Amino acid sequence: MRTLKLTVAYDGTNYHGFQKQTNALTVQQVLEEKLSLLCGEKIVTAGSGRTDTGVHARGQVVSLTTSGSIPLENLLKACAGILPKDIVLWQAEEADEGFHARYSACWKRYCYRIVQNKHADPFLRNYVWQMREYLRLEVMQEAAQLLLGTHDFSFFRSAGSVQSSPVKTIYRAEWLQKEQGELEFCIEGNGFLYHMVRNIVWHLVEVGKGTKSIAAFKSEFAAGKRHFKVAPAPPQGLYLDYVGYIPHFLADIEKIRK
Amino acid sequence: MRTLKLTVAYDGTNYHGFQKQTNALTVQQVLEEKLSLLCGEKIVTAGSGRTDTGVHARGQVVSLTTSGSIPLENLLKACAGILPKDIVLWQAEEADEGFHARYSACWKRYCYRIVQNKHADPFLRNYVWQMREYLRLEVMQEAAQLLLGTHDFSFFRSAGSVQSSPVKTIYRAEWLQKEQGELEFCIEGNGFLYHMVRNIVWHLVEVGKGTKSIAAFKSEFAAGKRHFKVAPAPPQGLYLDYVGYIPHFLADIEKIRK
Repeated sequence: MRTLKLTVAYDGTNYHGFQKQTNALTVQQVLEEKLSLLCGEKIVTAGSGRTDTGVHARGQVVSLTTSGSIPLENLLKACAGILPKDIVLWQAEEADEGFHARYSACWKRYCYRIVQNKHADPFLRNYVWQMREYLRLEVMQEAAQLLLGTHDFSFFRSAGSVQSSPVKTIYRAEWLQKEQGELEFCIEGNGFLYHMVRNIVWHLVEVGKGTKSIAAFKSEFAAGKRHFKVAPAPPQGLYLDYVGYIPHFLADIEKIRK
Repeated sequence: MRTLKLTVAYDGTNYHGFQKQTNALTVQQVLEEKLSLLCGEKIVTAGSGRTDTGVHARGQVVSLTTSGSIPLENLLKACAGILPKDIVLWQAEEADEGFHARYSACWKRYCYRIVQNKHADPFLRNYVWQMREYLRLEVMQEAAQLLLGTHDFSFFRSAGSVQSSPVKTIYRAEWLQKEQGELEFCIEGNGFLYHMVRNIVWHLVEVGKGTKSIAAFKSEFAAGKRHFKVAPAPPQGLYLDYVGYIPHFLADIEKIRK
């Protein structure tokens, strides 16, 4: 059996998220259907994590095992032909036996795009959070720094969370000023709770608008309790950007240690 | 009666072009429905020109007359609320009596976006022509210069053209190198034949790929005969960017002359 690691980009606009569901079209379902055709057997995939309806991915990672012998180059070419245009297979690699897109993942990067513009741009409606308000970048940057390190992120957890420890480590939380009034928030960490990034963005935007002080943000976050009243930032601004795995040689060292 | 000049941007992906049809959803139909609601009377609009299915506009101009008294500021705000998110009213102005989006237009600018990338980008699928081939910008630029001035553009006319003179004047025809492998072709002229911009782009791309020489391009164009074998460049790369009208004071001078 071969184990494959696929890197997939998708426009989430027309899907009910990544993960398979019984009664709604999802990215995973489409992928499995097409991969099954190409591999000549029923393919079951694992994704690095879910993404919600309307959320996008530039670098979702998917793992699978197959007894099929299709060369990776052919798989890439064939996928370009039979996948719908809003799902693209970027990369296909042979992986070590036991590699699992979710369980083997070490860290992830999410990005969130905001455009401050007077008039809504019809071409951005599915790809960024558009707002008329002016956001103060400096204070959002300052508040974002408070997220760095290991903390209880319960405050940014939405109801409906799968049970998992609310303690996560954030390596990077940074706003980037892009062209034409666009801001991009990049956050990297070893794990994320349900709606965590979108809830963080919502609160940082409150800080940027001046409706919440950095002190209030800090104390709410430190309290470590789930907040019921906030709406997460809208899904279309969010991108699962990259999923990081432990390099082979480090994994080998870990095996030797054990 | 008031005459209004509206500037509209739209994502043409989900419409059968701009112009009203009896059995397909078009941008003009949606605009007229919503404007009729806001003006309290049946509104009939004129657009500066048609755009095909999948073609976009950043600056389509629409004119209408109304006996309604809705202030322009309110019209803008209300449209932001009731238009679908893929159609945006950028600007609303009072215009002189007799102003007509099509007949009063002096010139137009179209832009065509091409992205050269190895893997298709799912986020660009509806907004650019994506191709794996590398295009030589210098030769496309050189060929584009041949379009400048007043010529018979029959060679770039598709079948199905509305009858109009094939002689048009082109003021600008220029390729711009943008970020991340993107090229944008900008063309400005006093009029355009059916599919003219997309046919021009198709031929310039042939030149850029090296499958057609500049000399061949030049002689085909000079022959002034419609070419049956070419497919126009795909619609999603094309944007109606700007429509130019004669300024008021010049129009007044013309009236005095008459």
